[in-house]
Amino acid sequence: MCELLGMSANVPTDICFSFSGLMQRGGRTGPHRDGWGIAMYDGRGARSFHDPRPSVASEIADLIERYSIRSRIIISHIRKANRGRVCLENTHPFARELWGASWVFAHNGQLKGIKQRALTHYQPMGTTDSEHAFCWMLDRIRSAFPTRPKRRARLRELVAALASELNTLGTFNFLLSDSVELFAHCSTRMCWLTRRHPFSQARLIDTGATIDFAPLTTPKDVVTVIASKPLTDNESWTTMTPDSIAVFRLGEVQP
Amino acid sequence: MCELLGMSANVPTDICFSFSGLMQRGGRTGPHRDGWGIAMYDGRGARSFHDPRPSVASEIADLIERYSIRSRIIISHIRKANRGRVCLENTHPFARELWGASWVFAHNGQLKGIKQRALTHYQPMGTTDSEHAFCWMLDRIRSAFPTRPKRRARLRELVAALASELNTLGTFNFLLSDSVELFAHCSTRMCWLTRRHPFSQARLIDTGATIDFAPLTTPKDVVTVIASKPLTDNESWTTMTPDSIAVFRLGEVQP
Repeated sequence: MCELLGMSANVPTDICFSFSGLMQRGGRTGPHRDGWGIAMYDGRGARSFHDPRPSVASEIADLIERYSIRSRIIISHIRKANRGRVCLENTHPFARELWGASWVFAHNGQLKGIKQRALTHYQPMGTTDSEHAFCWMLDRIRSAFPTRPKRRARLRELVAALASELNTLGTFNFLLSDSVELFAHCSTRMCWLTRRHPFSQARLIDTGATIDFAPLTTPKDVVTVIASKPLTDNESWTTMTPDSIAVFRLGEVQP
Repeated sequence: MCELLGMSANVPTDICFSFSGLMQRGGRTGPHRDGWGIAMYDGRGARSFHDPRPSVASEIADLIERYSIRSRIIISHIRKANRGRVCLENTHPFARELWGASWVFAHNGQLKGIKQRALTHYQPMGTTDSEHAFCWMLDRIRSAFPTRPKRRARLRELVAALASELNTLGTFNFLLSDSVELFAHCSTRMCWLTRRHPFSQARLIDTGATIDFAPLTTPKDVVTVIASKPLTDNESWTTMTPDSIAVFRLGEVQP
């Protein structure tokens, strides 16, 4: 199993606190020793860091923590390899360009038979079922919408339909973004939490560390964190139901 | 003007020494204060780092130096903006997937009227003429070769022809890679240097620092460095002629 972590916010926000909890699962409190990656949007592009080594040992993970790069949309993943060898090409999140924006995808689970599905526009660089599934979804989105659709609802419906279709092949928990919204699909486990004014203290399950968000925020800030499992034990996480999708934009869950 | 730096090697090699010289041109010995980026191949994928801030001030540049990530193909760029605002989307090198491999591109120069050229498969995320030129070249390569051509010579001929065609629009010094070879096109300035056994000492023009490669290498190592201008003053650089292309594979220039 792998761990997913996402963030959607209305102001550029760093993910250091949540990430420091997630990283412990890369080799210390969890079995996820086969690499980690993070993508942080900046406009239509995304800055990404990938490391095939365990996250606790990683100097780059340390960098993200220390220099607190800020973003409105972040997708992160730590990996316990079950398909595909441990190498850079197989390290999530994956990224491809569509409509002049970077699409980013990270997956937890396995999909049986996904590689039998033919691909046209997008080809995987690595050997994971996850990257194949991402390429297949983007192929379908590109075919349905050669240019960015004006009506967001149509795109959301398509993403939900594709997610449900692939969910029948196995376990398909994923985070996906097109630089505008963040899509979270729950196959077996996914939860989220929105922090807003009045901000208070949070305590990490994995380290016991606490943070008081009040002095670090303004009353207008809205930040949602999405994760495979709750990262804090003193806040109220929303657990998603199996085969459901949630869409986040500027920190707010979309109706 | 921007500075380009590339490397092709037959063993995973770090670029710290050359990069430390190049970086000085980002704000200290040069006027290139508008960001920098680097892509380092690992298999068919590439790890990349981008920073819209000046390279001398950058913590991430420091990271690359300190943790010496090794690669067989590296493309790096520091930028003096002349087209497009300073932001992540406009920071070279650019990357796109074709044939299941990451293609990476960095450009020095300006191309007049390039944006009038229609694009099909690949769309720019930012507003630079450079990224538009990259997308246009990849469109043409993809149309000519829907799958990776068996004969490398045909691909090299096409890349050279596309480079010459765009070179008529202005200045088109670039580095490009498909994960197998590194293409260097000289429009106005580009030079390269191959280091091999017996390795000796090199002295950086920008810092005066010296390094003795002999204890850091084996007799089998072959490493070529490609740069806009010579980085060292005690080695013999090959200056490319205008509108010529050189192809490097595993450290060796190709006939």
